[in-house]
Amino acid sequence: MLKHTLFTPGPTNVPPEVLQALGSPIVHHRAPDFEPIFQQAREGLQYVFRTQNPVVPLTSSGSGGMEAAVTSLLACGEKALSFEGGKFGERWGDICKAYGINVITHSVEWGTAATPEMVEKALKENPDAKAVFCTHCETSTGVLTDVEAIAKIVAKTDAVLVIDAVSSLGAEPLETDEWGVDVVVTGSQKALMLPPGMAFVSVSPKAEKMINQAKSTCFYFSLKAALKALAKNTTPWTGPVSMIVALNAAVDLLKKEGIENIWARHQRCAEAIRKGSEALGLSLFSKSPSNVVVALTVPAGVDAGKITKTMRDAFGMTITGGQEQLKGKIIRIAALGFVEEFDVLALIGALELSLIRQDHKCELGAGVAAALKSLNTSLSK
Amino acid sequence: MLKHTLFTPGPTNVPPEVLQALGSPIVHHRAPDFEPIFQQAREGLQYVFRTQNPVVPLTSSGSGGMEAAVTSLLACGEKALSFEGGKFGERWGDICKAYGINVITHSVEWGTAATPEMVEKALKENPDAKAVFCTHCETSTGVLTDVEAIAKIVAKTDAVLVIDAVSSLGAEPLETDEWGVDVVVTGSQKALMLPPGMAFVSVSPKAEKMINQAKSTCFYFSLKAALKALAKNTTPWTGPVSMIVALNAAVDLLKKEGIENIWARHQRCAEAIRKGSEALGLSLFSKSPSNVVVALTVPAGVDAGKITKTMRDAFGMTITGGQEQLKGKIIRIAALGFVEEFDVLALIGALELSLIRQDHKCELGAGVAAALKSLNTSLSK
Repeated sequence: MLKHTLFTPGPTNVPPEVLQALGSPIVHHRAPDFEPIFQQAREGLQYVFRTQNPVVPLTSSGSGGMEAAVTSLLACGEKALSFEGGKFGERWGDICKAYGINVITHSVEWGTAATPEMVEKALKENPDAKAVFCTHCETSTGVLTDVEAIAKIVAKTDAVLVIDAVSSLGAEPLETDEWGVDVVVTGSQKALMLPPGMAFVSVSPKAEKMINQAKSTCFYFSLKAALKALAKNTTPWTGPVSMIVALNAAVDLLKKEGIENIWARHQRCAEAIRKGSEALGLSLFSKSPSNVVVALTVPAGVDAGKITKTMRDAFGMTITGGQEQLKGKIIRIAALGFVEEFDVLALIGALELSLIRQDHKCELGAGVAAALKSLNTSLSK
Repeated sequence: MLKHTLFTPGPTNVPPEVLQALGSPIVHHRAPDFEPIFQQAREGLQYVFRTQNPVVPLTSSGSGGMEAAVTSLLACGEKALSFEGGKFGERWGDICKAYGINVITHSVEWGTAATPEMVEKALKENPDAKAVFCTHCETSTGVLTDVEAIAKIVAKTDAVLVIDAVSSLGAEPLETDEWGVDVVVTGSQKALMLPPGMAFVSVSPKAEKMINQAKSTCFYFSLKAALKALAKNTTPWTGPVSMIVALNAAVDLLKKEGIENIWARHQRCAEAIRKGSEALGLSLFSKSPSNVVVALTVPAGVDAGKITKTMRDAFGMTITGGQEQLKGKIIRIAALGFVEEFDVLALIGALELSLIRQDHKCELGAGVAAALKSLNTSLSK
């Protein structure tokens, strides 16, 4: 037997209760029996987004949610600022450029986070910028950005703050309303424990006003149309009813555990991964490490690609390697969504065996021992 | 017990085998074990599309597939022709206008189809038109358009023919390659017997050339990017892995029955609905009736809204009413996807009882008898 477990920053494992809900008979999206289901989904999304603002459900991947934010807020020629320190941060700039938006991209060294000071300086230099695009957890580098501090700065201006929380929402604290984040984008296949296929976008009153006044170019991804439909408890296009039924099942599980407890679990698991990996000679790539995904530089002489291959093919555990310039240099491990503390012990055990198969020198058991010590401490708190 | 059955033109009932596949554990979209699954899906789509051309899978509703076709082929200011005889036909024009495309819309009376002559005349008057947008089955009116004849005309020009087959693909004969249709768009939640959540777009070499040369404005829905990824057996964004696993299960069922047999079944079911309804005093709304959805004008004195309500609430069968100017005037019944001949008898029985509850004068049993006679003839062929 080879149990298959995803330790990837999305898609993630889906709990049996959610898979079962996904396989429920189809309800017609315009029939009255769908109304309470959709109402429940809207409220559930507000729970995980920590917001009283509307959260728009979209049938798309997370990138579609990002495009919805860009094209609903801004028209061709309008100015925006983006801060990019990885593959996903770059996506903001790419989408803006595709639609002719005058985006000023600020590169951040991969492995480090955009700072509030950088955002403040850029906004001072560009008082006509209408939007600031940032990444909460940069999935390609495992970096977490201080969204709370950045939100304070953007709030003082006329610009809106738009956060890619595709991988982080539900895993890292993100207080949409308390911090005053205007637009938060996430995807279904991460901490929400659903299959890929949906994006969700929260919209603050400040952002909604900008959306309603925008002379932007969009149709399918129009947040204006989606917000109008949402107020009538529906969607402009045929909604993915199976996914929405499954979302309700997933949010039931999230509520049962409690969102603060879920954030703490992700913290415990990520810390155990960090401690276990460091005991084996791997080092943290990120200087501002997130709990969504842990990016680890492999020791000299170790082939990162072989680790991921052995982990997957021999031990049934899927982790991911580096992307673009980090290919072959790092591995990325995520205890995201439906993963608990003892799954991490299994993971570190498999990582040890994968390293030893490459003749990497480490004391067998050092990784699992370090991970367990970390868990013992964090679980006693 | 109240069994719930959808007789709607999407979403449609999903077979248990497909629901079960949908609830399979998640496979990572970039891991090697997903490769054969995706390869199978690509081939399965070519089977139902009757094409050797690539068929792009998109995470979106059918409208997203339509937007992908428009924005991947045409740039702002370029000319296109659209033919619209209903709510969905109008969508082509709406999408074009949202992106600044110079679309010349040709209105067709609701209930009738665009003719090859209309297309020929419009193309002669607009030799610079780059694309012709048509609807195969107009879901709002139950009208079928002669795509084969229109394709012959468009093929003689430099323009590409783009067909909305969102509701019709798999239910009505559509010979993508044999007829020479450049771009065909469909959705998952119709004859493909899947939940809503995906669109599929086939692309001919003529269309692919136009897409690759287009100076168009798109990102998420870029067919250029999708075709490039497809050639590497992948998707540009995270694909909806659960839906793709379910698609393979659905196509297995479709192949087992055989696409020609499926077309014939839809014909038999639609004809039985027409005959059964006519025997009850309803009349066909469409002058060019499709087998995807049957639009029926209700007799004077009968409340269309009450019929759909009784059918659904008392008998568990969901049918739909008219949209926009047809609201309250027609009902629409679809034996689409996972529906067989004897389901239609049940449906007509429920329709009879719903009519009688409104004191509509008809001989009880006349509808089911007429439907059964129709089925006896068609099943003996």
